[in-house]
Amino acid sequence: MESEDYKPDYKDKSSTLQDRPSIDSLHRIIEDQIADEKFDEIRETLKTLHPAEIADLMSGFGALKKNIVFDLVPREIQHEVLIELEESDQEDLLERMSEEEIGDILENLDSDDAADVAALLDEPVRSRVLESTADEDRKEVEHLLGYDEESAGGLMSLEMVTVPDHASVNEAIKAVRYAREKVGIDDIHYVYMVDDDLRLLGGVTILDLLLADRNRPVHELKYKDLITIPSGLDQEEVAQRFQRYDLISAPVVNDKGQLVGRITIDDIVDVIQDEAQEDIGYLGGTGEEEVGERNILKASSLRLPWLLVSFVGELMNVFLIARYEMTLANLIIIAFFIPIIIAVAGNVGIQSSTIVIRGLASGEIPLHHTFRRVLREVLVGTLNGTIIALALGIVIFFWKQEVRISIAVGASMICVVIIAAITGSLTPILLKKTKQDPAHACGPFITVTNDVIGLAIYMFITTSILLQ
Amino acid sequence: MESEDYKPDYKDKSSTLQDRPSIDSLHRIIEDQIADEKFDEIRETLKTLHPAEIADLMSGFGALKKNIVFDLVPREIQHEVLIELEESDQEDLLERMSEEEIGDILENLDSDDAADVAALLDEPVRSRVLESTADEDRKEVEHLLGYDEESAGGLMSLEMVTVPDHASVNEAIKAVRYAREKVGIDDIHYVYMVDDDLRLLGGVTILDLLLADRNRPVHELKYKDLITIPSGLDQEEVAQRFQRYDLISAPVVNDKGQLVGRITIDDIVDVIQDEAQEDIGYLGGTGEEEVGERNILKASSLRLPWLLVSFVGELMNVFLIARYEMTLANLIIIAFFIPIIIAVAGNVGIQSSTIVIRGLASGEIPLHHTFRRVLREVLVGTLNGTIIALALGIVIFFWKQEVRISIAVGASMICVVIIAAITGSLTPILLKKTKQDPAHACGPFITVTNDVIGLAIYMFITTSILLQ
Repeated sequence: MESEDYKPDYKDKSSTLQDRPSIDSLHRIIEDQIADEKFDEIRETLKTLHPAEIADLMSGFGALKKNIVFDLVPREIQHEVLIELEESDQEDLLERMSEEEIGDILENLDSDDAADVAALLDEPVRSRVLESTADEDRKEVEHLLGYDEESAGGLMSLEMVTVPDHASVNEAIKAVRYAREKVGIDDIHYVYMVDDDLRLLGGVTILDLLLADRNRPVHELKYKDLITIPSGLDQEEVAQRFQRYDLISAPVVNDKGQLVGRITIDDIVDVIQDEAQEDIGYLGGTGEEEVGERNILKASSLRLPWLLVSFVGELMNVFLIARYEMTLANLIIIAFFIPIIIAVAGNVGIQSSTIVIRGLASGEIPLHHTFRRVLREVLVGTLNGTIIALALGIVIFFWKQEVRISIAVGASMICVVIIAAITGSLTPILLKKTKQDPAHACGPFITVTNDVIGLAIYMFITTSILLQ
Repeated sequence: MESEDYKPDYKDKSSTLQDRPSIDSLHRIIEDQIADEKFDEIRETLKTLHPAEIADLMSGFGALKKNIVFDLVPREIQHEVLIELEESDQEDLLERMSEEEIGDILENLDSDDAADVAALLDEPVRSRVLESTADEDRKEVEHLLGYDEESAGGLMSLEMVTVPDHASVNEAIKAVRYAREKVGIDDIHYVYMVDDDLRLLGGVTILDLLLADRNRPVHELKYKDLITIPSGLDQEEVAQRFQRYDLISAPVVNDKGQLVGRITIDDIVDVIQDEAQEDIGYLGGTGEEEVGERNILKASSLRLPWLLVSFVGELMNVFLIARYEMTLANLIIIAFFIPIIIAVAGNVGIQSSTIVIRGLASGEIPLHHTFRRVLREVLVGTLNGTIIALALGIVIFFWKQEVRISIAVGASMICVVIIAAITGSLTPILLKKTKQDPAHACGPFITVTNDVIGLAIYMFITTSILLQ
């Protein structure tokens, strides 16, 4: 659909309806232009791109090329590009900038974005940068930095439109016009009504203002489904509310019911994406590692804890097998099936934990009704485990012509799978009950637990049956 | 924050600013009321809830209680509750309804939701239900059913506001009023301008209409950053555009540039959530299984393929170890380290594949620049593998006082980990290059591949060194 030589022209109004260029093809073009040192051409191309496109483009480049491209971005949209980048890239770019440049960027950003950038600066630099920015901007950023980054307060911006409860539609429109034209707020969805103490009394949508008689008092148009967000609410719960009620914007209130900010859906979409990526990272044993992390040592150290858990757990297996050394020397066939028993048990455990983690996150598995779920996982696991055990038993029978071995290995497989289904489904539930994030502590932990328990069961059952 | 006896009152305007009730506490209250057959009380409670809250509440109940609650939902919001439920629950409820009831629900829903529900009906029922619904509604649903469910066309709704290019602001507001008051569209963000052939010429935001002089022609207010979505675009790419450009609503156009519908952010949030859950499901080896799947056989059959892959792969390991039977009988110590070698290799492989899958999905790893990434994964894997190998070598040395065994096992560990990092990072890249979804085909496949290759390397290296 998108050709390689497509020339987007972002600022030309007549062409904005066209399809946007593919980042992958742009990436190749710019890469060639950097190699040929055609910096003017790059500058021209960047002028035609949306800030988010430039950020996406940059994310595929190494550190050096990222810097080159950022320096060629038109000055007036550098702050918009910066805010779209990953945190580690933002840090790299900020380190190269003068304090004056950083100050300019903070002043151009919305309060929530400015606070996010300021949070990345090291202390002496941050204070000096903030001191040099305009009084109002500085106060806003310092105020927002006071909230927990992962709470509603950390997500909200301070830019919004408020009127007294007794204002008319006409006055509300005047307030919107001021916010739009003087303050530069583009995405206004509500005008909020507050009392003298800034307590939130209600909101009216822009759509209702458009259709209403201009002399009506706004409180008659109060939007009845207005959902508010407490400023201390965890960002995951904020995202759940946005999803549940299909919100595009919501007011944030403090303990006293005062309006302190607003959150918009674009920030929530990022939260949902980040939380899902974080869960995948933890389940895969990479934790907080960013995809773009360039420091090999940092990447290694973020992954090492999972490997060490696995190492320590499997060391127990080493000693367990060693305990059976004499038995194994006489009955070496027992060793043949160690990997398959462990692997199938590991898979069943991960399957159960994956589905339980998803259900706990979505609320489909209520926390006080978990026994039923564990039972279901055991049933599903046992059913599949029995099929695999039968298949394995048959293979062993035709291979070795010994029913006793078939039965010993098959029976172990079924027992091991049942235990795996129980630990796989119970562990995330127990973590959730003790207020921990199931996704963070499952993954490799469940595999290694099942490996150790599974091997112990297997060695016990097979030696009991075969040494009779 | 939310007490157990909290009484929400959704329809009472004065209380809408209050915090919403906790689904978990409601769940317990309703459960007790069902047990006590206090159906009138349940009906009263449901009246005070938002449809999405009722759906969330229902998702935690078993089949029977789901039905009881749904029957007690006020008739006029049943369609809104239905559309918020999981597909499998929707199917169950639809099966119990009369064709007339289903017809009523379709007529009350927005076109995109009505098409989603109609898609769940079996053919003879669907035709009969559609025949009995109003002509216009039927045509809309049939038109939308023609689009691929996972494309932009499958996501869009047909409800939108359009005016000719030469219309005035006043005329545009009239069109908005008609859409709001007669058609019942609540979430209007843009008025779209079209020519006589319905080709999209531009859009103007509700905010711009509010602030503009009522006699100006709308084309002067054209929103310059309007991003359009081709109707055939895959839903994952649609979601990427919404994220990249921070959209809350976007027009969908066909090949001829005609406006055919619009997509709103609430549907995109669901897509992002679903795609992430799907990836987690595939990585964990549960595939398309829904958390709420009540059919044990279906759940088992969805998980079985992953277990069979593991079974077949590990069967190769059984025969591999059997080939070394004589060696093992003499050098039983080799068997001790089989589980730890396999487990660490498996972990390293999953770590590499997890981070590469994330990077490919986000575009941070450009597809034509993958060698660098594989190299990085090998470096990170080798670094960690060497640390683990050293630790293991030291443990073996102090335990067995035999340097040769330490060296043989440690060296195998390093080799196995390097191979695991290569397969873990290369497999998702190759899948992506052959246009397959990396998340769908990785997970258990990578583990089993690494198990087989890892064990072969381990047996070869240890026997080579120790049998000299």
